[in-house]
Amino acid sequence: MSAARRAQIVGTGLIGGSIGRALRARGWHVTGVDGDLATVRRAVELGALDAEGWDPEAEICFLAVPVSALADAAAEALERTAAVVTDVGSVKGAVATTVDHPRFVAGHPMAGSEQDGVAGADPTMFEGAVWVLTPGPATAPETQALVHSVVASLGADVLTLGPDEHDRLVAMVSHVPHLTAAALMRLAAARATEHGAVLRLAAGGFRDMTRIAAGRSNIWPDICAENRDAIVAVLDDLVDELREVREQVARADRPALLAALEAARAARLNLPTTAPRPEGLVELRIGVTDEPGQLARITTLATEAGVNIYDIEIAHSAEGPRGVVILLVPAEGVAPFTDRLAAAGFAVGRRDLP
Amino acid sequence: MSAARRAQIVGTGLIGGSIGRALRARGWHVTGVDGDLATVRRAVELGALDAEGWDPEAEICFLAVPVSALADAAAEALERTAAVVTDVGSVKGAVATTVDHPRFVAGHPMAGSEQDGVAGADPTMFEGAVWVLTPGPATAPETQALVHSVVASLGADVLTLGPDEHDRLVAMVSHVPHLTAAALMRLAAARATEHGAVLRLAAGGFRDMTRIAAGRSNIWPDICAENRDAIVAVLDDLVDELREVREQVARADRPALLAALEAARAARLNLPTTAPRPEGLVELRIGVTDEPGQLARITTLATEAGVNIYDIEIAHSAEGPRGVVILLVPAEGVAPFTDRLAAAGFAVGRRDLP
Repeated sequence: MSAARRAQIVGTGLIGGSIGRALRARGWHVTGVDGDLATVRRAVELGALDAEGWDPEAEICFLAVPVSALADAAAEALERTAAVVTDVGSVKGAVATTVDHPRFVAGHPMAGSEQDGVAGADPTMFEGAVWVLTPGPATAPETQALVHSVVASLGADVLTLGPDEHDRLVAMVSHVPHLTAAALMRLAAARATEHGAVLRLAAGGFRDMTRIAAGRSNIWPDICAENRDAIVAVLDDLVDELREVREQVARADRPALLAALEAARAARLNLPTTAPRPEGLVELRIGVTDEPGQLARITTLATEAGVNIYDIEIAHSAEGPRGVVILLVPAEGVAPFTDRLAAAGFAVGRRDLP
Repeated sequence: MSAARRAQIVGTGLIGGSIGRALRARGWHVTGVDGDLATVRRAVELGALDAEGWDPEAEICFLAVPVSALADAAAEALERTAAVVTDVGSVKGAVATTVDHPRFVAGHPMAGSEQDGVAGADPTMFEGAVWVLTPGPATAPETQALVHSVVASLGADVLTLGPDEHDRLVAMVSHVPHLTAAALMRLAAARATEHGAVLRLAAGGFRDMTRIAAGRSNIWPDICAENRDAIVAVLDDLVDELREVREQVARADRPALLAALEAARAARLNLPTTAPRPEGLVELRIGVTDEPGQLARITTLATEAGVNIYDIEIAHSAEGPRGVVILLVPAEGVAPFTDRLAAAGFAVGRRDLP
């Protein structure tokens, strides 16, 4: 019987506890620490951890701490273990410059729930969820490959993006929607003081639109501060868009209103529900030098080409600084990706799997 | 065996068909017409109607036609039947002036589904839904009382509002949220042409917020044109609110952001899910003269006092122009309502029910 793989978790709240439970369900040995002693003991009791403390033999370490504690937690984890280290924060641009180490890759699992604390920890939280990795210039390919394969094993759909790109995109699909839901809710509530009927009139659509405004408020000031520029840019775009709609309504421009609503409808109906399951997979073998950033370039090209990476592995040559990155990707739609790789100067071999 | 009560429906699509099915499930005989012959025949086949055509003996008639067809449909229904007549449109200010008749009261059931046409008709559509009535100056008390009791019998929570008040409130909780969801969806889709990952990052919150943008587009140009002023006013308020949030983010004003988000959170958590079931009901007997608008004044005072009317009846005195309005309302919280009635000059008797 082979020994269990070993993981370390720093911060054993909702997300850290869910990672612990998901890893343990897959046979891992999980050790954890938390700034609050009662929290980590509760995590052991609830089965999110095998043990309390630091595990010097861990091969991977997840930092699930508030952003203000991240730099210190990363430094401690890199010193106390030989593990690759990743975090779970919602904003990535600042992290990429804060932690600059070959054994670190920043990450963001786009999952969670309104339940707070380890008691809400759910080992299935990441199944089907998108988990973004944003490698920095110092991130070693092995670091990225290991974190990619572990989080993919938890059922997540892994996506590699540049840190700033990630931040612009989440401003659009997460941060500004939250602020907008809250703004709508405040406006309706202000009218409710004049006329209580307003909230009784609020039917399904309004409930759907404002649901996220009921979520935890205390995480948002930090997120807004960290991702300020991207959020301000998207809010400016939204205000421009709403002012245009306002003009269309004011002049009763039915064709313009219909066209705008039809465009939104078509886009919403096309919103993907989950990553498509591939019909068939192919193996791509891509020659690389052992320079930092090579794997990030490859995975970013995959994302740009709309190609999902199902598995990733690094094969080093017996001697010399060259190696091979082995990717498992869907056969369908692989051509634009291999074309981009070739254009970027990579040598690519392809093998269809049975 | 007493004869079935008889209803007429004009326009047998989704809403008209649902009303037909809901009435038939309660023993009514329902006759219907539609501008499209195939539609009305399909409604008969699907059991939404007993018969096709006009029923001169109908006691109530529902107009479920597009707003452009409403004036003609109302005139025909008032001429062909002796029924009280009501409509189901989303905007009420214009209707109140278009149709000015003692046997007409405008209405708006706040229910529906994305399914279009009679095939989606659902007899339970109105259970627990708010159904607003907006009596005009000509509406007779008997008209309002009869429509109130019939729609309440379908399980709806009836609310009486002034037509302009209704329009301002639905702009806030329905029309502007729809336009905002569509604007967010268009912004995200525009970014998706630059980076396909944006839609893969769109998690539950974004999906909830944009769900209504997938609904039918073709009803909205008319709604926006009819309710232009109220929608423009709410859009202006929303733009102001978002610009303020933008400034708070830009200057990283954490206390202001937290306070704004906490206010929204508290309001969303307090959003009523359904009308509360009363612990005990009381019967109020209110003396009225047979002047138009008396019942509208009473029900509007009830709404202002936050009192839900469970049943309503008009008892005419044997001789003379006076009568009594009998209301069934929750005992809890009835005092502010009876105070308002007294202040408005009504004589009110109260009887606790066993």
